[in-house]
Amino acid sequence: MSEQTLLNTLQAVNQSASFNRWAGFQVTHAAAGEAELRMDWRKDDMGQYSGYLHAGLIGAMLDTACGYAAATVAGRVLASNFSVNCLAPTVGRSFVARGRVVKAGRKQVFASAELYAEQDGGELLLVATGNAILVPVEPQGVPISGA
Amino acid sequence: MSEQTLLNTLQAVNQSASFNRWAGFQVTHAAAGEAELRMDWRKDDMGQYSGYLHAGLIGAMLDTACGYAAATVAGRVLASNFSVNCLAPTVGRSFVARGRVVKAGRKQVFASAELYAEQDGGELLLVATGNAILVPVEPQGVPISGA
Amino acid sequence: MSEQTLLNTLQAVNQSASFNRWAGFQVTHAAAGEAELRMDWRKDDMGQYSGYLHAGLIGAMLDTACGYAAATVAGRVLASNFSVNCLAPTVGRSFVARGRVVKAGRKQVFASAELYAEQDGGELLLVATGNAILVPVEPQGVPISGA
Amino acid sequence: MSEQTLLNTLQAVNQSASFNRWAGFQVTHAAAGEAELRMDWRKDDMGQYSGYLHAGLIGAMLDTACGYAAATVAGRVLASNFSVNCLAPTVGRSFVARGRVVKAGRKQVFASAELYAEQDGGELLLVATGNAILVPVEPQGVPISGA
Repeated sequence: MSEQTLLNTLQAVNQSASFNRWAGFQVTHAAAGEAELRMDWRKDDMGQYSGYLHAGLIGAMLDTACGYAAATVAGRVLASNFSVNCLAPTVGRSFVARGRVVKAGRKQVFASAELYAEQDGGELLLVATGNAILVPVEPQGVPISGA
Repeated sequence: MSEQTLLNTLQAVNQSASFNRWAGFQVTHAAAGEAELRMDWRKDDMGQYSGYLHAGLIGAMLDTACGYAAATVAGRVLASNFSVNCLAPTVGRSFVARGRVVKAGRKQVFASAELYAEQDGGELLLVATGNAILVPVEPQGVPISGA
Repeated sequence: MSEQTLLNTLQAVNQSASFNRWAGFQVTHAAAGEAELRMDWRKDDMGQYSGYLHAGLIGAMLDTACGYAAATVAGRVLASNFSVNCLAPTVGRSFVARGRVVKAGRKQVFASAELYAEQDGGELLLVATGNAILVPVEPQGVPISGA
Repeated sequence: MSEQTLLNTLQAVNQSASFNRWAGFQVTHAAAGEAELRMDWRKDDMGQYSGYLHAGLIGAMLDTACGYAAATVAGRVLASNFSVNCLAPTVGRSFVARGRVVKAGRKQVFASAELYAEQDGGELLLVATGNAILVPVEPQGVPISGA
């Protein structure tokens, strides 16, 4: 499957999830074992009590980037475990999550992701990291081939 | 501090977070080392691609319940790490997260939480578990005393 | 299977692992979804640089207690993920790990465990907690029935 | 501090830990934010029930590599949390763990590590990954300067 087809497929999957539409997730890159996700900051419904990006959204971006990276090699998956390290206050005008597959097994896919906060000058600062274990929904682990 | 004061304080903190207001988080119980959180399901902006509750919201509820439990003994805290186990498809009309402090140290507070999906008959099914490490913002670790 | 049979079976599995024999692991309790493990402290080959129990042994006890708890319901399993929270300095004359199954699925078993340090007076202090995800080796997930 | 001094210091710390001496850990590389650890396989006291490297030793190597990487920038540290993904059966004649600091804060150091199994031909296969949170023992977080 070409990278363009992968990207189109992930974008369609992404649009089918109501939370992702609400959050404004955009799939900006896909390749075998890789996916990138972008989200613009909105202070009116994305903040925690200090005004930083809420940890739930940090986890959502990292988990989703891991899931999409896994989907490029294993088809439809569900997260069974994910963990997040919050490294720095998550302040930025946009956030970018980059996920990649560490190991794709038949029963489980291990993936990792980094979350970057885009600063006013466009610089990307690493603000969080995550790991996820994804379980293929279809036992064959066929790559995604449609929404 | 009485449990009613703890509850009032956590409810005020909760209302000060824009994501929590959007998600409709309600703090329904607080005691020393304990907190309970409730959220009603909305299919139009809370789902992942299969229509289950999005993993980001699973993580948000677990992390927030851990954070509020920690706040009852350590004051304002920030999550530095959280991990989530997704045990079962998260389908329900409401979700309840119960957090508790496992160990409160000076530098770190360890907390755990369970997430339950409320079924149509009112039954609570365990659907996810989580752990979090919270770091007190104030070095003294004073309990919360106001919003 | 009776609890005595479960215990005998886990003890036989335990003796078949060379690391467990070296560490002196003893299986002291087994029931459906539960297992308890005990280890005596030896300062000559179990310490980290400050003289506490080495984190590797903390993890080994927690992971093994989770694995044995899982084995009581799912047969032979392999750990795919485990995480450990070190709550307090691990000093004691003996250590006891108690594992239990949180959720047993067909593809994955989720388990948790606590590690206690036995003090000179016999008191048990909680020093660490752990979580593990175990994958059944046999797809059927048959309970253990022999070493 | 020069890399040779860092290496000498970590080797001295390593020799001061009785478990590390028993396991035969060797510190083979150190630089600012990095450390590498090596261990030879011994089937007589390092195996789990199937004859693979015991998960406790997988965790011990990953956690130690993370801790040594953290020590190069933050001085003496204690692990408060570590997590391990077991990607493949851990079979090899030797094992190599490579740790690096992801983010060094004043209160917490985040580190990651990979574990490789050396095959008969010398090839290194990735068999496990790990993450750790280390807490500096001295509040100043001074780099290690002696055993």
